[in-house]
Amino acid sequence: MALSLPIALDAMGGDFAPAAMVEGAVRAAQQGIPVTLVGRETEIKRELEKYEPSSLIDVVQASDVIGMDDHATDTRKNKNLSINVAINLLRQKKVSAVVAQGHTGATLVSALFGLGRLPGVERPAIVANFPNATGRVTLVDVGANADARASFMQGFALMGAAYSSVMFGKTDPSVGLLSIGEEEGKGNQLVLETFDLLKSTPGLNFYGNVEGRDIFKGTVDVVVTDGFTGNVVLKAAESEAKVLFGWVREALTGGNWLTKLGALLVRPALRGVAAKLDPAEYGAQPLLGVKGLVFIGHGSSDAKAVYSALSFAARAVEANLLEKTASKLEVLAQKLEKVDTA
Amino acid sequence: MALSLPIALDAMGGDFAPAAMVEGAVRAAQQGIPVTLVGRETEIKRELEKYEPSSLIDVVQASDVIGMDDHATDTRKNKNLSINVAINLLRQKKVSAVVAQGHTGATLVSALFGLGRLPGVERPAIVANFPNATGRVTLVDVGANADARASFMQGFALMGAAYSSVMFGKTDPSVGLLSIGEEEGKGNQLVLETFDLLKSTPGLNFYGNVEGRDIFKGTVDVVVTDGFTGNVVLKAAESEAKVLFGWVREALTGGNWLTKLGALLVRPALRGVAAKLDPAEYGAQPLLGVKGLVFIGHGSSDAKAVYSALSFAARAVEANLLEKTASKLEVLAQKLEKVDTA
Repeated sequence: MALSLPIALDAMGGDFAPAAMVEGAVRAAQQGIPVTLVGRETEIKRELEKYEPSSLIDVVQASDVIGMDDHATDTRKNKNLSINVAINLLRQKKVSAVVAQGHTGATLVSALFGLGRLPGVERPAIVANFPNATGRVTLVDVGANADARASFMQGFALMGAAYSSVMFGKTDPSVGLLSIGEEEGKGNQLVLETFDLLKSTPGLNFYGNVEGRDIFKGTVDVVVTDGFTGNVVLKAAESEAKVLFGWVREALTGGNWLTKLGALLVRPALRGVAAKLDPAEYGAQPLLGVKGLVFIGHGSSDAKAVYSALSFAARAVEANLLEKTASKLEVLAQKLEKVDTA
Repeated sequence: MALSLPIALDAMGGDFAPAAMVEGAVRAAQQGIPVTLVGRETEIKRELEKYEPSSLIDVVQASDVIGMDDHATDTRKNKNLSINVAINLLRQKKVSAVVAQGHTGATLVSALFGLGRLPGVERPAIVANFPNATGRVTLVDVGANADARASFMQGFALMGAAYSSVMFGKTDPSVGLLSIGEEEGKGNQLVLETFDLLKSTPGLNFYGNVEGRDIFKGTVDVVVTDGFTGNVVLKAAESEAKVLFGWVREALTGGNWLTKLGALLVRPALRGVAAKLDPAEYGAQPLLGVKGLVFIGHGSSDAKAVYSALSFAARAVEANLLEKTASKLEVLAQKLEKVDTA
């Protein structure tokens, strides 16, 4: 695998920046993925000195960092923020994608204004994956739009379908609308309006309503929801898995000697289950709908998660996720064009 | 324990009615809980004949049942529906509470129109409990209101607090508002408006915003949200637990003989964890805000879940949940009175 252009990594964003970002980049380079570290050059180079030099890593200076307490809109005021410099490299086609683990709102704003939207997209959306009973489900939007409209959701559905088919090889992925009842007519106002729109969207394999339980049961390939509900579900699901596994661990280590012996014997088997649930599996979630590949990672990403994010981004570049998403959205672009020329 | 009035059980609602309902009632009676079975007398009596007769069980005839495919509003057209007969018994104070596992919307409509709202309540809400890292969290609303307003949510917060303190002995329970960021100002429009209202609600220990992850981390005693988000989270959480435990079971039974031996040894310890997660632990969730104690159970309830629901309802009657909820809501009742007389 060799990308012709490097992936830009915001080396200053995230709880463990820049150390975890640099270590993750070094690991990615060892796997042949070229990385451009964006941020304070001296700090980054001090970290880089800890590793063997690699021709696949370069550094681009950015003097400032957006603070986690800053407003997302502050991003527009300062060109020298690491996220803005990274997005600008993408706009200039000096990199093939951007990975950022910092302030999510800032990344959104920077990407939206620095790159612009793909034709047909009213609002970009963040896409996430869950492991579930039948493999994996794609959930969209998980936080870019706290308040959504039916027409935004139509775009989410198409973007989610494109993503599921490009990244996970699903042929004509089925798309469900998250609601509180399976039947048409169940849900809140937004769902009722969205249902009608999705039903009549060409090129969309619309399944109908799904419920919370269907996310894990694996009823559909893609679940569409507003960014508020999606974000709540994503964070609740990650936290639930952590708490449940904590209980399992506690039960196994806190028992009598027979339980402890049993725990030793089953440990390898349970490790496989834990790995399945590791949110670092992909490391980052794509922001779809902008003119460029942007991946948003957990603020708490460690080097392993950073490496996973870079490697997932590299896969997306190679699979032409951007072009294929744009082509799936053409049906909406044509509709908007018609409205514009009417 | 001896209740002076029986608990009415809709014997016709739920996937396994009337067999599971009758068996659950028999178990409850064995524990000293008087139960009035409401539904088709001949069908119920045929089931009852399978058990020792009990003076704590009686049957009230109701000739009709609401179908799962009927509209909730159809409930108002037929007095002879089992749910309407049960609610009517409660209105006439012939029973102390109603437990229903059938059509949730029908139960809502029947309770709302048959009993009326408590003073100060704009909208009743369904309350659920989750086991979590620090014990248990109360989530409200989990489905009564697909679209909510800030003023509804204020009522949810007070009802959730009353419930948490009465049923789980929490002193001045902390109440968090479910959002997509901890800071004030994060969330959708509904959350932003609700935040301001909750901040200034007397008698409410308002914590501020919480995120999806806080539900399982145990950050607060009560989490307030709209019925759409709450329902999605509830169903997703139950389903996730089931899928994760399925994986654990599979990993333990599918391995080599050492893993299988280990699985045998850890089985008792894991059974404790599974019990913690059993949605049948309480069996039913109260609908708060109406003038009477109404509990809504899973449609898929088996006899054990029916028994748990009856026993939980009996606890709520003895703990004066209704009166204490009404008194917590007085602050809203006074506010509404002021508006009415202005």
